[in-house]
Amino acid sequence: MPVKIGVNGYGTIGKRVADAVNLQDDMEVVGVTKRRATYEAKMAVKNAFPFYAADQEYVQDFESEGIEVEGTLKNLIEKADVIVDCTPSNSGYKSLYEEKGVKAIFQGGEKHELTNLSFNALANYEEAIDADYVRVVSCNTTGLCRTLYPLHSNFGVENVIAVMIRRGADPPNSKKGPINAIEPVLKVPSHHGPDVQTVMPYLNIQTTAVKVPTTIMHLHSIVVKLKKEVSRENVINVWDETPRIMLVSSKYGFKSTAQIMEAARDMGRKRGDLFEIAVWEDGVHVIGDTLYYYQAIHQESDVVPENIDAIRAMCNLEKDKMKSIRKTDEAMGIE
Amino acid sequence: MPVKIGVNGYGTIGKRVADAVNLQDDMEVVGVTKRRATYEAKMAVKNAFPFYAADQEYVQDFESEGIEVEGTLKNLIEKADVIVDCTPSNSGYKSLYEEKGVKAIFQGGEKHELTNLSFNALANYEEAIDADYVRVVSCNTTGLCRTLYPLHSNFGVENVIAVMIRRGADPPNSKKGPINAIEPVLKVPSHHGPDVQTVMPYLNIQTTAVKVPTTIMHLHSIVVKLKKEVSRENVINVWDETPRIMLVSSKYGFKSTAQIMEAARDMGRKRGDLFEIAVWEDGVHVIGDTLYYYQAIHQESDVVPENIDAIRAMCNLEKDKMKSIRKTDEAMGIE
Amino acid sequence: MPVKIGVNGYGTIGKRVADAVNLQDDMEVVGVTKRRATYEAKMAVKNAFPFYAADQEYVQDFESEGIEVEGTLKNLIEKADVIVDCTPSNSGYKSLYEEKGVKAIFQGGEKHELTNLSFNALANYEEAIDADYVRVVSCNTTGLCRTLYPLHSNFGVENVIAVMIRRGADPPNSKKGPINAIEPVLKVPSHHGPDVQTVMPYLNIQTTAVKVPTTIMHLHSIVVKLKKEVSRENVINVWDETPRIMLVSSKYGFKSTAQIMEAARDMGRKRGDLFEIAVWEDGVHVIGDTLYYYQAIHQESDVVPENIDAIRAMCNLEKDKMKSIRKTDEAMGIE
Amino acid sequence: MPVKIGVNGYGTIGKRVADAVNLQDDMEVVGVTKRRATYEAKMAVKNAFPFYAADQEYVQDFESEGIEVEGTLKNLIEKADVIVDCTPSNSGYKSLYEEKGVKAIFQGGEKHELTNLSFNALANYEEAIDADYVRVVSCNTTGLCRTLYPLHSNFGVENVIAVMIRRGADPPNSKKGPINAIEPVLKVPSHHGPDVQTVMPYLNIQTTAVKVPTTIMHLHSIVVKLKKEVSRENVINVWDETPRIMLVSSKYGFKSTAQIMEAARDMGRKRGDLFEIAVWEDGVHVIGDTLYYYQAIHQESDVVPENIDAIRAMCNLEKDKMKSIRKTDEAMGIE
Repeated sequence: MPVKIGVNGYGTIGKRVADAVNLQDDMEVVGVTKRRATYEAKMAVKNAFPFYAADQEYVQDFESEGIEVEGTLKNLIEKADVIVDCTPSNSGYKSLYEEKGVKAIFQGGEKHELTNLSFNALANYEEAIDADYVRVVSCNTTGLCRTLYPLHSNFGVENVIAVMIRRGADPPNSKKGPINAIEPVLKVPSHHGPDVQTVMPYLNIQTTAVKVPTTIMHLHSIVVKLKKEVSRENVINVWDETPRIMLVSSKYGFKSTAQIMEAARDMGRKRGDLFEIAVWEDGVHVIGDTLYYYQAIHQESDVVPENIDAIRAMCNLEKDKMKSIRKTDEAMGIE
Repeated sequence: MPVKIGVNGYGTIGKRVADAVNLQDDMEVVGVTKRRATYEAKMAVKNAFPFYAADQEYVQDFESEGIEVEGTLKNLIEKADVIVDCTPSNSGYKSLYEEKGVKAIFQGGEKHELTNLSFNALANYEEAIDADYVRVVSCNTTGLCRTLYPLHSNFGVENVIAVMIRRGADPPNSKKGPINAIEPVLKVPSHHGPDVQTVMPYLNIQTTAVKVPTTIMHLHSIVVKLKKEVSRENVINVWDETPRIMLVSSKYGFKSTAQIMEAARDMGRKRGDLFEIAVWEDGVHVIGDTLYYYQAIHQESDVVPENIDAIRAMCNLEKDKMKSIRKTDEAMGIE
Repeated sequence: MPVKIGVNGYGTIGKRVADAVNLQDDMEVVGVTKRRATYEAKMAVKNAFPFYAADQEYVQDFESEGIEVEGTLKNLIEKADVIVDCTPSNSGYKSLYEEKGVKAIFQGGEKHELTNLSFNALANYEEAIDADYVRVVSCNTTGLCRTLYPLHSNFGVENVIAVMIRRGADPPNSKKGPINAIEPVLKVPSHHGPDVQTVMPYLNIQTTAVKVPTTIMHLHSIVVKLKKEVSRENVINVWDETPRIMLVSSKYGFKSTAQIMEAARDMGRKRGDLFEIAVWEDGVHVIGDTLYYYQAIHQESDVVPENIDAIRAMCNLEKDKMKSIRKTDEAMGIE
Repeated sequence: MPVKIGVNGYGTIGKRVADAVNLQDDMEVVGVTKRRATYEAKMAVKNAFPFYAADQEYVQDFESEGIEVEGTLKNLIEKADVIVDCTPSNSGYKSLYEEKGVKAIFQGGEKHELTNLSFNALANYEEAIDADYVRVVSCNTTGLCRTLYPLHSNFGVENVIAVMIRRGADPPNSKKGPINAIEPVLKVPSHHGPDVQTVMPYLNIQTTAVKVPTTIMHLHSIVVKLKKEVSRENVINVWDETPRIMLVSSKYGFKSTAQIMEAARDMGRKRGDLFEIAVWEDGVHVIGDTLYYYQAIHQESDVVPENIDAIRAMCNLEKDKMKSIRKTDEAMGIE
């Protein structure tokens, strides 16, 4: 019998997790919650997800907009084996989940200390087996783990310097800027480095970050001092065999994040999502013992398959990380 | 037996027309052409479209990239009943089509004089029945026809002033600007007004246009002096019953083109396309005999269903425009 | 003896008004106020403007940053003949000014009802003579008055439709978006039309507006039905003789707002400001009795000379509007 | 008697160099050249620079636009002691200068090999004394030299990794994008690292770069392994005493490049230029032997004072680099 999943917060991440759960044969969505009667709420109903108000106070608003409500979050919790919490950071639902005795996954906007278990499928799947509370790390941290973990396990990593060039706002957010500025994160290291270490505590990594006026994809410029000298072909081969990494090349027209997003649209996945981390093959260079590379991160969707794997580990549906990853990916059309 | 369609030029419009043809039961794609071995070419192959080089000179490039070629454009023409020409403006293929005796559809970048028959399904489907050469008007003109034709036929239109706020470049184009400027089209009327008149010659319309730094959607601010006084509810009702118009409202979160595109992604259509013209219901106002409204145009896809209808008219598969429109829309998931 | 001016709020408008006052020989800045110890505050001190805290509570912050304070707003009011209030909209200082018996100018963010006297130098200078409280209309409204008033007085205006394409945020604001969207003002008419009528109540004008992702200049697409048929040359000649209008042409490289702002920088005025309204000469067209034109508005500075003229009228330094305008312009380097 | 300077190419750099030369007491502009009758040409005339056509073929165009021409480039060369060549890269004038026996300065778009002498005032002024042909390095390279040279000379530098986040186009360029994408320079190292080494051959530096959709300022994220452990205060003190570096801090509102450019406008320099490199004081961090910092580069103007110093060195007007730098800066208002 499939594991019953409730999605608390049907926004950027929540709506994607709900769709991804529905593609798996060992789990199913028993309900999603929302607070406001937006087009996203209407779309949840259209997509036939059982619809719950985040709280009793929102019920009337939904009903006056013709959206039938199955109950509130508390009712949903009772039906669910796992709640995937996709609410804004610091929404503070953990104590409710504990009280009701339901397992829960949190997203990377929360602090590591909320669960003391931060998760990336490739790097530490095993730690999440049978866990009650897991935090799937953020889109940027997920991207760093995806390409750095195989470097660590194949070659050894002396240290990493990563500069994150971050998109200013997600596509549906038309309020936030900047319109014409570059904004540095003046705290060094930015939170990304320590966050990678919540998953890979053995990694020596420093990060800096800036924000720029685009809505599509973060881009990372990464410098890795490896423990042994390898060729760029070695590195490319390792990534080629690693799941959830997509190699792209400027010779096929991938000049910027724009063409990567366009290829994702052409692949026909819902919302034009790219669950993989895109690495420019012709941007991979090895000089001495130092590797340079660029990767692009689809900030809205790369963590979605990790949420699926986290569910599988927490419910002990699968002990082998690679089997879970492959099962997730096959169902989601990730090659 | 389905009508055989060749798509010459598998780019922004061509790839969408190919997908749309494949969704219909009375037509099929017999091949697509391309000139360069980009990711779009690889995707065409992945999508199982028979692949042709635009010319003999490109064959070797494709083969050296492992893309098998079924032949060249000339071979494709021989297999096709209709070529949908989605090549860049002024590519000049018409004489080849005439020589080979194949029907062809051109896009709105071409001049009206190329075919002397400019097409919008709702406004002048009948003119294209049995025609050999048809031009489907551009995305902006299509958008204007979609909302103005029902005003004309229901209420009568005295005159129209439309200001087009145009996106600077399509999403996969990272070369073109502007980055931080607004650029007016100093010629007045801009080409859009006269272009609407190639379809609706009886319409008194003036247009101006500016270009702005976005990649998603054109937005039109339109002022229509109607021949009779009507309420805004009358107007909204007429559009509500018109195909390929989608009413949106700020109260559900549609504050800008960003949320409209996001809703399109959530609808699950390939590439997040929006074939409908989005009209803000709460942006419709009637003051005296004058109607004001805003509409948003998904520049990459709104003309796609019109191409399908044009094929149907030219091959005399259907004489009734509304039947063709409904058949096209049902197959494409347009409600 | 020069009139004593206090500037309450040394931000985008305030700092420019202070500089402009200092260029005149019949008025002088006796102080400026600020609330936070930003770089603008430091620059005010560097520019030798007597510096006041907006309120007692801010004094300590300034002093801990080494900014000496001459007192608070209340002290400044006592020294001033006129306060130019450049605080954010609805800051609510008017009752304080009344209590202290000081004249005051407010900016276009305030409602007309605050003063019942909205001001544009060319259109209604005379109304402000000896007035105690005047509101200088906003940048967009000022731009509309500047080009429409001479059309009204020379040819007569039947009606006006103006579409405002507005910049998303000012250059120093890196918080606000949109980054990649066009946002319509769904209320029609937008507030601009009625706002023009606070200055020119006899004008039949409707306006709509959208917001786009640029930081430089608003652009207006304007359609005017004139009371008599005139040639485009007539119109251009009238504007050429009107103060504070600058005719530009694409043949000299003025393709967009970007080149207009660049020319302003080259002119050497402080901050690269453009106090004039830029009208594209080759964007002026007359079709029948209808005039079409585009104008660009430097939102940060076009109202600055109007503030100077308003001071002059309110203090009865000059009864003739053209004399005041010319005096202001000569001092500010406006040709 | 002042040294006679001809400026070949009155564009982004040329117009600024001309203005800067005019502020010095030991050099003067004897003429500027231009090819097209744009607003920049008209402004050159307005600024009273003797105006020359770049070639005979352009003379008529200028005259038909009412721009009087003193002659052509060849005439200007005869009057000049030094030509500052600000033409587009690879314009190929060097052989003409050699033939005519005139000294010349080239800009950073040219290759090092053109002159075999690349210049930064602080790092290698002495090498340019009496030189005939000098290349002033590009805006980014100038910025790197300005902050790295004092680190090298005070502390010793083990190695440098610098990531350049570059603006997509200059403010007056409304053609170039990207509008909504981040574009990496896939070649590693990007040309900036080797370019720094043309000035500081002893420096171990690697650079990567991306292009983003802004028009104002490049931003660098720089990581420097120093030869000895120092505190961040040591570093800040060194930079505080180095000319042409401006320390900024987020506590005064400098959150992004936007506020830095705004402060430059407030400083009242022509065009709102910032000749200094802006370094965020609160973005300077030392972790072990490694220094992290962010700097912002005004791409249109930071090389201008270097051109002045290069003239002074080439004409042997001053042997002491610090004396030249201070003389230049005082005249240009750089503190």
